[in-house]
Amino acid sequence: MKTYLDCLPCFLSQALRTARIATDDEKKVKRVLDEVGMMLRDIPLESTPPESGRLIYRKISKITGNLDPYREMKSESTKKALSLYPSLKSRVEKSNDRVLAAIKIAIAGNVIDFGANWGFDLKHDISEVLEKDFAVCDYNKFKDGLDKADEILYIGDNAGECVFDRILIEEMKKPVIYVVRDVPIINDAIYEDAVQAGIDKVATILSSGTDAPGTILKTCSSEFKNIYKKSKFIISKGQGNYEALSSENRPIFFLLKAKCGVIADDIGVSEGDIILKEIKNR
Amino acid sequence: MKTYLDCLPCFLSQALRTARIATDDEKKVKRVLDEVGMMLRDIPLESTPPESGRLIYRKISKITGNLDPYREMKSESTKKALSLYPSLKSRVEKSNDRVLAAIKIAIAGNVIDFGANWGFDLKHDISEVLEKDFAVCDYNKFKDGLDKADEILYIGDNAGECVFDRILIEEMKKPVIYVVRDVPIINDAIYEDAVQAGIDKVATILSSGTDAPGTILKTCSSEFKNIYKKSKFIISKGQGNYEALSSENRPIFFLLKAKCGVIADDIGVSEGDIILKEIKNR
Repeated sequence: MKTYLDCLPCFLSQALRTARIATDDEKKVKRVLDEVGMMLRDIPLESTPPESGRLIYRKISKITGNLDPYREMKSESTKKALSLYPSLKSRVEKSNDRVLAAIKIAIAGNVIDFGANWGFDLKHDISEVLEKDFAVCDYNKFKDGLDKADEILYIGDNAGECVFDRILIEEMKKPVIYVVRDVPIINDAIYEDAVQAGIDKVATILSSGTDAPGTILKTCSSEFKNIYKKSKFIISKGQGNYEALSSENRPIFFLLKAKCGVIADDIGVSEGDIILKEIKNR
Repeated sequence: MKTYLDCLPCFLSQALRTARIATDDEKKVKRVLDEVGMMLRDIPLESTPPESGRLIYRKISKITGNLDPYREMKSESTKKALSLYPSLKSRVEKSNDRVLAAIKIAIAGNVIDFGANWGFDLKHDISEVLEKDFAVCDYNKFKDGLDKADEILYIGDNAGECVFDRILIEEMKKPVIYVVRDVPIINDAIYEDAVQAGIDKVATILSSGTDAPGTILKTCSSEFKNIYKKSKFIISKGQGNYEALSSENRPIFFLLKAKCGVIADDIGVSEGDIILKEIKNR
């Protein structure tokens, strides 16, 4: 997905919020805004938003000296998500279609987002998504693909959200490679976050090698790219991965909540909609 | 009021919305964001927000070639407000305290704002304010001042809002000088807007001389400043005038709705609160 003009003020708002979490020094926060403000003109609209997000969040870390401002908030998200795990499991057990129920739960976990969806209320937002109908639901294709798949490449998104992904992984009954970011970026899941969520018990965890808030292939490791190219069934979670991969010519199912108007317009749905969508660029 | 860091992303969002209204040329809109982004680092936090707003909106006009992007929207606002005039008058007539009822109506008109309160729904927001209790209500002092006043200096804010101000002017039964901006800036009222609202029938309309979205005295005419300095009873409407005049040592009553968190914090109330407040810096 390209960068829209609406992304630019959003970058600045994100920079302010993150800088304030990263440091108490108001002068450094001001410097973050000054420098991010000046970066905006160099953002090519044809690049994807996580490419710019990557540069902006690195700039914030450089100025504030804080390499992982969301560390504690990520761990808290995972703890809160784990506390919901038993009730979500019993929801799956009571459903008519366990995989479909688990897909919805995995999408519900996508409300955890300290980038574009700041100010979420976990319990409230989760139950709202669970009651919602899909705006796009390529479930039959998903089931077909899943039946034929020997292995699933599952590209994770945020910390905390991993707990919800785990529920879907447990229902798919196939070997899963679960992909995380290589280093901390916003509240995106890295290896430690996936382990805290218990993903290591149900899947092989693999770093994509990227330091961006989305799977931008040119920033990924060769190891990841080789696995990605061979994968016949790929699940991509969340906005950042959608933004990075929506133009790809691969068998990818995008699972996400459209948390901003820009993403919603790009997909052709309304803000707040939930989506299970296979995008065919081939 | 000083500029808060939160004002900076808000400036950029306002610039995007305004540029899109001012022109269909996406390249010019991008240039607006680029240039406003670069202006941010030069904004002194000790200056008031309308001082920067003035420079930013001038920049938008310069780049887009549109000196008055809100012209039609202003006129539409006034027409809509005029259509509500009869029902608001009858509300005053049925009230126990006509002046207090009219004050609330004047504040309700403050929801009309294409700067910080974009996306308002006139009828809905007006009735919401009318049902709301004041968070600060220096009404006794206001009544005292009004009783003693020979003349009222009433500093207007936005087009459309003038219609609501007219209702308060009609109830105060004293000579009123109604102050407007000198040239178009956002949707702030200029002479023509006040006339369209019928203010010329109930008050003397005077330009402050400013081209800013707030009464920044150093940008005002000598004529206005002389009248301002001698005034013994001043009414200041809206956020822009509050931002410009809140540190002044004059007998000013601020009538406004706190439409953003920054203003609310500065006043010590909650976002959405309505206020009739005399600020004493003397």
